Amino acid sequence: MTTYKAINLVKRPEPGPVSADVFEVVEKELPKVGTGELLIKQTQMSLDPAMFGWMSPDTESYIPPVELGTVMRSSGVGEVVESKHPDFQVGDRVMGMMGWQEYALSDGQGINKVDAQVPDEMVLSVFALPGLTATQGLFNVGKPQQGETLVVTGAAGSVGSIVGQLAKAEGLTVIGVVGSDEKADWIVNELGFDGAVNYKADDLAQQLAKHTPDGIDLYFENTGGPIQHLVFERMNAHGRVVVCGMIADYDKAEPSPGPSWIPIIKKRLSIQGFTMPDHFHQVPSLLAKLTPYVMSGKVKYRAHVIEGLESAIEGLNMFFTGDNQGKLIVKL
Amino acid sequence: MTTYKAINLVKRPEPGPVSADVFEVVEKELPKVGTGELLIKQTQMSLDPAMFGWMSPDTESYIPPVELGTVMRSSGVGEVVESKHPDFQVGDRVMGMMGWQEYALSDGQGINKVDAQVPDEMVLSVFALPGLTATQGLFNVGKPQQGETLVVTGAAGSVGSIVGQLAKAEGLTVIGVVGSDEKADWIVNELGFDGAVNYKADDLAQQLAKHTPDGIDLYFENTGGPIQHLVFERMNAHGRVVVCGMIADYDKAEPSPGPSWIPIIKKRLSIQGFTMPDHFHQVPSLLAKLTPYVMSGKVKYRAHVIEGLESAIEGLNMFFTGDNQGKLIVKL
Repeated sequence: MTTYKAINLVKRPEPGPVSADVFEVVEKELPKVGTGELLIKQTQMSLDPAMFGWMSPDTESYIPPVELGTVMRSSGVGEVVESKHPDFQVGDRVMGMMGWQEYALSDGQGINKVDAQVPDEMVLSVFALPGLTATQGLFNVGKPQQGETLVVTGAAGSVGSIVGQLAKAEGLTVIGVVGSDEKADWIVNELGFDGAVNYKADDLAQQLAKHTPDGIDLYFENTGGPIQHLVFERMNAHGRVVVCGMIADYDKAEPSPGPSWIPIIKKRLSIQGFTMPDHFHQVPSLLAKLTPYVMSGKVKYRAHVIEGLESAIEGLNMFFTGDNQGKLIVKL
Repeated sequence: MTTYKAINLVKRPEPGPVSADVFEVVEKELPKVGTGELLIKQTQMSLDPAMFGWMSPDTESYIPPVELGTVMRSSGVGEVVESKHPDFQVGDRVMGMMGWQEYALSDGQGINKVDAQVPDEMVLSVFALPGLTATQGLFNVGKPQQGETLVVTGAAGSVGSIVGQLAKAEGLTVIGVVGSDEKADWIVNELGFDGAVNYKADDLAQQLAKHTPDGIDLYFENTGGPIQHLVFERMNAHGRVVVCGMIADYDKAEPSPGPSWIPIIKKRLSIQGFTMPDHFHQVPSLLAKLTPYVMSGKVKYRAHVIEGLESAIEGLNMFFTGDNQGKLIVKL
């Protein structure tokens, strides 16, 4: 009888870097495939900052936390190896929420076929959570207008890099906030951003001011941290803030305070939080919006691939250190 | 030749209570009324928290600051005493931006006639800035839904008291935050709020929790201060925050930080600032929305009337002490 490996969440993580003992690697028997089910051999799985929310016990969050003793939640790409489901054939390439495991049994809900032409890494880097999140947040929440100035934090990250490229394609001036000179170089010289600011620079406020002489109309927030206050101070009247991630604060016991609300009145700002699970029913229209940009070469990406199921555990902490260069993907 | 008194702004106020020497009382000659002009004898003028913004030198604010050496800006009610304007007759009762002065010369722009039936105090307490602000903020920004819970700060104030009554009429559960037990009593027993919280109470968090067992869907912010963080923590998923005023911070050199942005993501909150000057073109539709509530007796008010032009100077500081009971009006 064949077995496969899976990783269960067994403890809620404390604030700070995720310690390996919140997970348990288990060996499982391959399940029997019942009528209406299919078995997927996962080939690549995605690591996303949203996972810190999924692991936390916070029941007020947007989707229920991963139950202790069950497989860690994640999206992935794989191949159908057995099917008693009318819509799927053996050999189909599929994507969906598959979890931290080598094989996933599914009833087909939320599992979508993937064009054979699209590389695995592009699926997870562009057409999965990052691209959908960028498209929903930029267009449906941020409502960008040609000629406006956008600042995006986490600009070399999986979501931020796509937000910036889509905004450039729409005719905005796009400034990215990153955590290394290498990333600054990448977003400006490879992705075509108009400018980059390294948030570790001493003269951060001056750098930001230099790059945004006309102020900031649209602020796409992926990180939090001190840069938040500096960007917020430079918002123009009627500016919009799209709050997508606060990675700088996810590992803190006590989250940092936000900016004073006085500019919200003076400048009539709007601040809107969103998460993709509220918008899964819009995936077809989001993909329809995103695909032409990708097909015309306007959305470049880079994947940071680590190998083997267990590498996911340490891989998660790269979101705090910023050591990854590109979308974090675990190759199985 | 007849003269009249006016009060000019001659210095920008420092943070903190407004000191009398930022104003200068001057004696002026009654102006000649030219073609297309009218002269108004002001009978009552309104004091509003927005004035702190108008006096500040902040050019990023929503309307230009009052220029030094010119009459302090304010709205008021008065009677036309001379007219060479085709739309106005001597004896017409009118309202509009008239400034801190006993007489105002106008070209008719922004001056509207007032029904003779409506008492002066009702004009300034309900149909002027407070009622328009409440109507715009509650309905067009907050989008209240029957059955939701609304918390409004500054609930005994000119805007907050109307917001709460309109929301009650729409079928929301309405909790008001006030600064005295007398005000708490007034909003609950006279205005029909479902509950009141005195922000000076020791057990503020517990009181707020007791009054909002189902959390808070809509938060109408007039004050800022520590209550902001407590209300924000109790927001429900998809909650909306309408930011209208931050009086608790207007007299501080360093404004207090706002809440962390993490709940904005987790609960997909939206926060929207607004000010009435952006919406003056909507005044007819706002009045059409507001008037039926007033006519059916659903909007009660109380005016705190002080006497004589110069009383405006000290009167302003009542916004910081909360000593006024009702809409601050200066009777001339």
